[in-house]
Amino acid sequence: MRAIDYQSMTDTFVIVGGDAAGMAAASKARREDPDLEIVVFEKGEWVSYGACGLPYYVKGEIQSLESLVSVTPEEFREERDIDLRTGHEVVEIDPDARTVTAEGDGGEVVQPYDHLLLATGAEAVAPPIDGTELEGVYTLGSMSDGKELREYVARARDGESFQQADRGPACRYLEDCSGPVGVVGGGYIGLEMAEALAANGFEVHLFQRSDRVLTGFSEATSEAVADHLRERDVALSLGSEVLELAGSEASEASDGASSDRTQSDDAAEVEAVVTADDRVPVEMVLLGTGVRPRTGLAEDAGIELGPTGAIATDAYRETNRPDVYAAGDCAEATHVVTGEPTHVPLALTANRHGRAVGQTVTGTPVEGGGVAGTAAVKVFDVEAARTGILDHDEARAAGFEPVSETITAKSRAGYYPEGGEVTITLTADRDSGRVLGASLVSEYGEGAVHRSHAIVAALTEGTTVSELENYDLAYAPPFNTTWDPVLVAAKVLGGDLRE
Amino acid sequence: MRAIDYQSMTDTFVIVGGDAAGMAAASKARREDPDLEIVVFEKGEWVSYGACGLPYYVKGEIQSLESLVSVTPEEFREERDIDLRTGHEVVEIDPDARTVTAEGDGGEVVQPYDHLLLATGAEAVAPPIDGTELEGVYTLGSMSDGKELREYVARARDGESFQQADRGPACRYLEDCSGPVGVVGGGYIGLEMAEALAANGFEVHLFQRSDRVLTGFSEATSEAVADHLRERDVALSLGSEVLELAGSEASEASDGASSDRTQSDDAAEVEAVVTADDRVPVEMVLLGTGVRPRTGLAEDAGIELGPTGAIATDAYRETNRPDVYAAGDCAEATHVVTGEPTHVPLALTANRHGRAVGQTVTGTPVEGGGVAGTAAVKVFDVEAARTGILDHDEARAAGFEPVSETITAKSRAGYYPEGGEVTITLTADRDSGRVLGASLVSEYGEGAVHRSHAIVAALTEGTTVSELENYDLAYAPPFNTTWDPVLVAAKVLGGDLRE
Repeated sequence: MRAIDYQSMTDTFVIVGGDAAGMAAASKARREDPDLEIVVFEKGEWVSYGACGLPYYVKGEIQSLESLVSVTPEEFREERDIDLRTGHEVVEIDPDARTVTAEGDGGEVVQPYDHLLLATGAEAVAPPIDGTELEGVYTLGSMSDGKELREYVARARDGESFQQADRGPACRYLEDCSGPVGVVGGGYIGLEMAEALAANGFEVHLFQRSDRVLTGFSEATSEAVADHLRERDVALSLGSEVLELAGSEASEASDGASSDRTQSDDAAEVEAVVTADDRVPVEMVLLGTGVRPRTGLAEDAGIELGPTGAIATDAYRETNRPDVYAAGDCAEATHVVTGEPTHVPLALTANRHGRAVGQTVTGTPVEGGGVAGTAAVKVFDVEAARTGILDHDEARAAGFEPVSETITAKSRAGYYPEGGEVTITLTADRDSGRVLGASLVSEYGEGAVHRSHAIVAALTEGTTVSELENYDLAYAPPFNTTWDPVLVAAKVLGGDLRE
Repeated sequence: MRAIDYQSMTDTFVIVGGDAAGMAAASKARREDPDLEIVVFEKGEWVSYGACGLPYYVKGEIQSLESLVSVTPEEFREERDIDLRTGHEVVEIDPDARTVTAEGDGGEVVQPYDHLLLATGAEAVAPPIDGTELEGVYTLGSMSDGKELREYVARARDGESFQQADRGPACRYLEDCSGPVGVVGGGYIGLEMAEALAANGFEVHLFQRSDRVLTGFSEATSEAVADHLRERDVALSLGSEVLELAGSEASEASDGASSDRTQSDDAAEVEAVVTADDRVPVEMVLLGTGVRPRTGLAEDAGIELGPTGAIATDAYRETNRPDVYAAGDCAEATHVVTGEPTHVPLALTANRHGRAVGQTVTGTPVEGGGVAGTAAVKVFDVEAARTGILDHDEARAAGFEPVSETITAKSRAGYYPEGGEVTITLTADRDSGRVLGASLVSEYGEGAVHRSHAIVAALTEGTTVSELENYDLAYAPPFNTTWDPVLVAAKVLGGDLRE
């Protein structure tokens, strides 16, 4: 039996998905229009949470999952008057009838909408190999994933308390190293989880198909990060595709005389990571092998996907169906350098585009802006950021003739008693001189990430390298050399361009 | 007797002043043209030194004055083939004859030039009050000033070794507080020296004519810095003009039975700082009351000064006399926001403009770019930066209708175990939405200064607040909240502008 909510004269704004984009849209719409009906369907129980904090929760630096939640469901309902329906999965969208159908504990509900936002996010993707279903194989895409991983760590540590902000290689400090554990994938999640596990005393082995970690960054950044991982006793297998996760026989696993395990005892457990060259014994595997946009609902409703496989939108995040918007990890965005659609599923874009949609549906259309593919990561005591177009093939495909330089410069005045180095790869177009991209790496606290802000600005504004050289950036000995490393990179690359 | 150097066919580039602008010009010119004759006259013995590091030398964090020198005179002479004549004071410029006259140990020399750069710098200005000539009254404009101050500190500490990078309030840790000492002026030098002296156990009393320190920054920044100074036991007299420095009678000072003082014993010593309300006993006074451009040589030669009192130049740093350039602290520059001449005597501009002149005189004219009035300072455990136009009267005088907002936001994700806050004042033009200026303050290490880089870029590019809101800045929990504080400031100010 289907219950239909007949709405009054007020517009109804329906949102599918209650994380960053969805709740940013709901909150902004409420601020702009106190009378709008706002209904959010979220299939899980958690909303508006900082998934980016999950590695730090697993590591033990954050004590509760709740602390990752910026606004609770109760606050959304009571303080922001948003009809937030957790535990409701939307199963169908009908753009002709302008309704969505959701299933929850109370049965099915058909909800009419005037404006609809798809904020269905992205999901962790397991590689197409055998063994990913084994016990002891994890991904980190959701709060429940984070909970399971932390429970795994707690069990392995046998009740030993989590350490706080331990940045050292844990195996040197803990009496017994646990593990070994395998991490598949050398992107953000893989690296952050390698740190989280190593800090808890696990012997970590990281497998990366490409010949370097952080493939979206420059080679210099990848090398610096890889060197640091090795210093921290993380074993790296680069250029090493995982062919299979090998498991124990299920029967063996359940032969144990007693069991207080929470998992099902008849499931086979992961025992080894198998590559072309090696078979590495592991007690657990974390898959950090990327995400894909959740687009099923949209596709079923005839909403177009773009060339990246995410939902296509215009500058206002409207899809090919009127009044149906898409924002966040499920949707494309326009790259500020290439002007082409891209899919960069990260938190700021989700927030910004969700917020823009929230304003647009209340009658003041606003563009949410493009993306620069900017990303930052901390790995143990190293920080790195990247932005724009760095890959030369990608730059040429976008019509540029890329030139790059990599410089290493002191992060503070040479005579200043503290400080380290910043390594910056800067890429520009030879003809126009336009800054296309950058990758920066430094010791944690030496400013690679915050310095990337200036280059994001430059990319977005179409700045040339010569113009960047002349930026009047702040200088004082505790913060940089007279020429900040960003300016040093611009000077060196500028020299190339003038030749 | 005048010796005239007759030059060969090669061009001669003569530079007056061997610090940042002068040596940057010499070095760049040499790289661009191996055959150019390059003659630098420097009246002192030190060249190419980081005057910005002097407070850290006095504090004891830097062990030798030599470490402030980036390239030694010998290196300039031998490795860069620059005819560097230290101990030579230029006493006359004749733009018609195209010569400069210098005096050195070997007598007077008349040096013809094809290109001339005036890089005479700026000098510390004492306020027009009685007592600035007393023993125990210091300024910090030169290497020798730094040496004297460090010797003063060493004497006062009676041989006790300098502490390294002590960031605590020294009086709490040292057995006996020395002092009291007075610091007059609440700008960079005054604040950095207040820290340097307090860290060495002096009881520091800072006098500031204005009702706040760091008057070029926002009020929020001034307040944060003042609060921090008080926390570190620096006594602040704000809105307190110093009327006089009172001294002992000279006769009394010389009545002592014995003397191993290096100063002349018959000079009167400073004893008190006198304001309208108070007479504060002090053993020493540091004057941090600003600088003025050294323009005497230029004026005598008929070279025009601009409205700021510094030497006027065009975009290539050429003065009103052909082939005579001026760069660095003695010269004006164009403000990137107002387009008007301004005088901001800071190291980066000196380096950049010197370098540009070095390239221009070798046949490839290059503009050195404008300035944004950007500055950064560390005071104990607080860092602050400012850029652009913040003052509303100044903004209105430049034809803008200024609107400002001040926000305080977390410097890292709220759930991240470390971090603090960043307070940002952002100013924009109401009509165009253009970003005009910003002032940022945070705990040291929480990124106020490096974050200012993004706003410098925005100012320089004529970015609007709405555009700034949409910058795809790097985000990860160890570095910021999803919306970096810079974006939070833009969002809040953007909200005002849309009203």
